[in-house]
Amino acid sequence: MSEELRTVWWEPGAVCLIDQRRLPHAQETVRCSELAAVAWAINAMVVRGAPAIGCTAAYGMALAAELSAAGTPDELLAELEQAKATLDAQRPTAVNLAWATGRVLTQARVAAAHGVAAIRAAVLTEAHAILAEDLAMCHAIGEHGAALIPPRGHVLTHCNAGGLATAGYGTALAPIRTAFTRGRAVHVFVDETRPFLQGARLTAWELQQAGIPLTLITDNMAGYMMRRGAIDCVIVGADRIVANGDTANKIGTYSLAVLARAHGLPFYVAAPSSTIDLQLAHGDQIPIEERSAAEVTHLGGQLIAPAGVHAAHPAFDVTPNELITAIITERGVIYPPFSEGLRAAVGERR
Amino acid sequence: MSEELRTVWWEPGAVCLIDQRRLPHAQETVRCSELAAVAWAINAMVVRGAPAIGCTAAYGMALAAELSAAGTPDELLAELEQAKATLDAQRPTAVNLAWATGRVLTQARVAAAHGVAAIRAAVLTEAHAILAEDLAMCHAIGEHGAALIPPRGHVLTHCNAGGLATAGYGTALAPIRTAFTRGRAVHVFVDETRPFLQGARLTAWELQQAGIPLTLITDNMAGYMMRRGAIDCVIVGADRIVANGDTANKIGTYSLAVLARAHGLPFYVAAPSSTIDLQLAHGDQIPIEERSAAEVTHLGGQLIAPAGVHAAHPAFDVTPNELITAIITERGVIYPPFSEGLRAAVGERR
Repeated sequence: MSEELRTVWWEPGAVCLIDQRRLPHAQETVRCSELAAVAWAINAMVVRGAPAIGCTAAYGMALAAELSAAGTPDELLAELEQAKATLDAQRPTAVNLAWATGRVLTQARVAAAHGVAAIRAAVLTEAHAILAEDLAMCHAIGEHGAALIPPRGHVLTHCNAGGLATAGYGTALAPIRTAFTRGRAVHVFVDETRPFLQGARLTAWELQQAGIPLTLITDNMAGYMMRRGAIDCVIVGADRIVANGDTANKIGTYSLAVLARAHGLPFYVAAPSSTIDLQLAHGDQIPIEERSAAEVTHLGGQLIAPAGVHAAHPAFDVTPNELITAIITERGVIYPPFSEGLRAAVGERR
Repeated sequence: MSEELRTVWWEPGAVCLIDQRRLPHAQETVRCSELAAVAWAINAMVVRGAPAIGCTAAYGMALAAELSAAGTPDELLAELEQAKATLDAQRPTAVNLAWATGRVLTQARVAAAHGVAAIRAAVLTEAHAILAEDLAMCHAIGEHGAALIPPRGHVLTHCNAGGLATAGYGTALAPIRTAFTRGRAVHVFVDETRPFLQGARLTAWELQQAGIPLTLITDNMAGYMMRRGAIDCVIVGADRIVANGDTANKIGTYSLAVLARAHGLPFYVAAPSSTIDLQLAHGDQIPIEERSAAEVTHLGGQLIAPAGVHAAHPAFDVTPNELITAIITERGVIYPPFSEGLRAAVGERR
């Protein structure tokens, strides 16, 4: 992916998204010109990846402000509170969502003394800032993380924590991109990541666009590749990191962490500090989104199992801190025990 | 699956197979009336599962004998040796294939003194015997294995080691079927088993037909389910078990064994003694079939990854003996260290 390709962007009166459900076969834009469309796009995974969801929701707040007919600051603030509740409810696991809408709402309140127009301006400015910061954070993660990839390193990743999961450049893919840009040999093993195939569809496409060598594998091949010595380390993204370092990420991440430990391989989580949620003490408290079983029994609209079969679809799992070698943030690399480093990273963020 | 449903059967002049590529959406028969068609059906996975492949190959030998224009026993034996080589080459990992064709060839040689017609009769009789024995072995595995499933047990299985992988009744599914038939509550978690989806298509269908409760999951959910305490034990089939107990089975099996160990869960391999290969001392010697990458990048003929992406497709992996709790055979349950028990099981078989 060229860095110019945008995942989410603002046009007057619309939140624009690249339709990630259609990649890699087609590059299409979804233009959301009302709040309900933004909420749908987040829920239906037109956009996915915790940081990208945060940017989208921030612009969703800006859209709500722009479309509002509110005559007073209080009315507009009430509408924005309602918009935040609507957006936050779409994906319960990603903490960046509520974090981004919260940041926007805070700026709206600060601007309220100056009237409705000031609120609208402040909200859009904050959404732009969240996007710009996200991009900067991704590059900083790339800097800190590249040093952890061994020479001629073979890196396994899961799902898509790439440019498409952020405003651009990515989180888990950032260290890989940075290492590659510096001329270092790197090879990526890409878990296809059932049921939604974010690895096969998005990560493979991003890496291919960037010219970074990759091998696509089914999720169940990871252990085999590790045992063969084909993998040097694992880098994944995160949807939520809680106070003790326990990390929620795409379903299958926990299995990879167990496998990495069994093979003596480093297991890294790469995420911006906005992913850290100090409100929760440990991972058991993270709500795990249960998505439709139809996403397991169907693929590309095609039924791949007997009709009427019962299927489960937890969209995320939690990797306990003891299986995580280090957490790579824009502030630097945090090693166990994680609590202090995570608190410090949050303390420094806006 | 009703027990009457056959995976492979003989009709005069043809080896008949249920087309497992079309299940669960359609029940169609593939009728192979020449040796090349049988070889193709094995290679293309019209039939799959080590015991079912063995039965198919045995009937393939019978077909070769029936179609032969050989005028002398020596000519016919030479043709059967050639047929065996052709069939054995189709799937390098499953040892039952060469075992079954070897049994048939041995009987052909025994009958050779009595002429060409005697060879033909002996070959078909032996193929029928292999099928009948397979069914009996599966029921015996069910008897021995059912005792290992805890009350109200939740069993995880991978791929299809069911009736469709055998002449009927199954290997890994046999203990589950037997427990269920006796009125015991049992629930099966079915790994979908990418890339070929044998779990989603075949195991889910078989269990559904039998009325056995199941939950279909993607392969990467197994660790999550184990950590939640949703799984009591794992039972898988085998494509080859070598002298020290190392076991080749469908890709992903090894990862499950690592996960089971990490969660303190029993990990059982269920297989007829024909799967045991004492010629190999340890699992590193087992040839691992590398299948087409197109099976990873496509699903149901549909491209699910960017065009031109590099993908790997090892079809099997090897689970080292130290991760296996016990091996369930038709002769009984073999516990570690496995060498002696495996030798005894082979010694007792035909």
